[in-house]
Amino acid sequence: MNAFELYNPTKLVFGADKVSRLGELVEPYGKRVLLVYGGGSIKKSGLYDDVISQLNEIKAIVHELSGIEPNPRLTTVNKGIEICRAEKIEFVLAVGGGSVLDAAKAIAAGALYDGDVWDFTIRQAVIQEALPIGTVLTLAATGSEMNGNAVISNWETKEKRGLGSKHVYPQFSILDPKLTYSVPRNQTVNGIVDIMSHVFEQYFSLTTDIPLQERFAESILLTVIENGEKALEDGTDYDARANLLLAGTYALNGTLPNGVTTDWATHGIEHEVSAIYDIAHGAGLAIIFPNWMKYVYKERVGKFARYAERVWGIDPAGKSEDELAIAGIEATRAYFTRIGAPATLGELDIDGQHLDRMADEATRFGPIGTFKQLNKDDVVNILTASL
Amino acid sequence: MNAFELYNPTKLVFGADKVSRLGELVEPYGKRVLLVYGGGSIKKSGLYDDVISQLNEIKAIVHELSGIEPNPRLTTVNKGIEICRAEKIEFVLAVGGGSVLDAAKAIAAGALYDGDVWDFTIRQAVIQEALPIGTVLTLAATGSEMNGNAVISNWETKEKRGLGSKHVYPQFSILDPKLTYSVPRNQTVNGIVDIMSHVFEQYFSLTTDIPLQERFAESILLTVIENGEKALEDGTDYDARANLLLAGTYALNGTLPNGVTTDWATHGIEHEVSAIYDIAHGAGLAIIFPNWMKYVYKERVGKFARYAERVWGIDPAGKSEDELAIAGIEATRAYFTRIGAPATLGELDIDGQHLDRMADEATRFGPIGTFKQLNKDDVVNILTASL
Repeated sequence: MNAFELYNPTKLVFGADKVSRLGELVEPYGKRVLLVYGGGSIKKSGLYDDVISQLNEIKAIVHELSGIEPNPRLTTVNKGIEICRAEKIEFVLAVGGGSVLDAAKAIAAGALYDGDVWDFTIRQAVIQEALPIGTVLTLAATGSEMNGNAVISNWETKEKRGLGSKHVYPQFSILDPKLTYSVPRNQTVNGIVDIMSHVFEQYFSLTTDIPLQERFAESILLTVIENGEKALEDGTDYDARANLLLAGTYALNGTLPNGVTTDWATHGIEHEVSAIYDIAHGAGLAIIFPNWMKYVYKERVGKFARYAERVWGIDPAGKSEDELAIAGIEATRAYFTRIGAPATLGELDIDGQHLDRMADEATRFGPIGTFKQLNKDDVVNILTASL
Repeated sequence: MNAFELYNPTKLVFGADKVSRLGELVEPYGKRVLLVYGGGSIKKSGLYDDVISQLNEIKAIVHELSGIEPNPRLTTVNKGIEICRAEKIEFVLAVGGGSVLDAAKAIAAGALYDGDVWDFTIRQAVIQEALPIGTVLTLAATGSEMNGNAVISNWETKEKRGLGSKHVYPQFSILDPKLTYSVPRNQTVNGIVDIMSHVFEQYFSLTTDIPLQERFAESILLTVIENGEKALEDGTDYDARANLLLAGTYALNGTLPNGVTTDWATHGIEHEVSAIYDIAHGAGLAIIFPNWMKYVYKERVGKFARYAERVWGIDPAGKSEDELAIAGIEATRAYFTRIGAPATLGELDIDGQHLDRMADEATRFGPIGTFKQLNKDDVVNILTASL
């Protein structure tokens, strides 16, 4: 096990109808609130009205930034920053899925920074402070509700990059499984893939002697696999939605990387694909991850064999370690296909014309990944296998 | 799954030699430090000198409270509170095991309370504020390093009671597995039992549809069972000590009870035994827990059958659910015996003379436990089986 630090001050408020506590949770932070949300779904569901009525009750002065994109854009973030500065916003409230939460984090950090918020993503500046943030989550996927990370896209330059800081952990996040009842099937699918991918990035590691972290990771995967299918069968299955929501949070709240050298190459590659094609992150991951697995598994076959056995219940009898590993990778692909995720870039009308550019961008700071360090050629190979 | 809240702001600093960061971690909180520790072991190991030298480097004014008992006493806590008030202490630094940490929490809360700190344990007052606390942990056991709970004993009235508040979460906890190399065998054993018992209290629940929490609990148990024996074989096995330490923290840092109705009856019963006889908490738990299990398992046999299969790897073939459950309970007892924990109160020279009083005290606020609600007679029965 490596040395590590663990710090996560977000207060999670989890359960049916917990959104009723919103007003009370916002109140200590001040009256001037920026409400950040996406498309119209929270208006259709009635959540918007509920939020506004609670904010009115605490006599908040509410400004709004709507229309956050699925891959939230720098231009939109900058609009939010302008509002924060002009209106002396004291608290940023994100109501939506991971993209809305990520945009809110970038806005909260950018509002108190005397420069371009993009600086944080290209390592030209470090976040020193941020406005306090609260969230109401409507989708099990990114884990953004309980961590200090965000990903935003610069649409002009076709770049998608991350920022992170202890200052952008949400002060609180309200997770009501019932709010995810209305999530459309394809978004539930993308969320399942996204959660599993977060676990993969931390589970497929060369670090040894980490039994607790490995078992925790397997616990999350098994929970997602089982409850993901249940939620797809019946979107209003409370326990399935709740288990998926909780698993999504734990996949990326700092529980899994303790003392573990994590990978994150596949996320790096996917970001370059969706920076150019604006596809859903989960869809991109469903396509690329099995190909990454096949490309790298020989670096530590035993880990993939264990994955096959413990996560997919594949009987090792009569199989070589290599065969077992491959069977686990195939089972991953089969599950993604079974729930309706795409298996090739071609299905999303993406051809090979930008592979070189994507591989260049993915490796712009040097080789990526740790399970196997990938250089530009490796990334091209994985993307080619994904076409 | 039930509704729940999760909040844990403690910063964990984990790894070999991380105690070197102590000075830097204490510095932001002020110069006037109360150093709380137990017997002489930290002086023998050199840790005391290291701590003092780092505190000197940041020019801290250090006051000391040593001699914290294994079951920390109210009288000792009150001494610490007096020092805090007289010396205008700004930060309480606990260096030791769970008892030292618990005493520090009670001191930190009591120092800012205009009344008797015991009030917090008998529900006569609620902690509204506390001095900031930091810890250097030297023993894998209580989980006190990453939660807001403490247990103290009133030796005059023979009462052992808990207090809890978000205000007494440590600001930081330094966990260096190497600091646990010198833990004597019997304390390592008690620590193992203590950690497993914390999991049991949260795992044996009537709450259904909590797959993630159940698997997390099993992950911790499996890690402790395996690494506990390794640490007993070789006290300087870094990974065994590290895995035990991390498992101990996760057993009681708020990961397991999310949405789960927990039990805690066995802890309640053990507290009454050690309030009178001052035995090690882990030793008392090793004796009582298997008897609690046998007394209650029929309330939900399936959970105990699952426990037998998943945690002890017992083959269910040819066994009834009841037989499987019993086999898991026997395996628990056998493990405790194998590592050298006591199996009966008699081994600790405790006879039946105070059973009635202990059962009275354990149920003074009403029946205890949730897996099966235990009244006074139930507690007498469990204690009688433990003689």
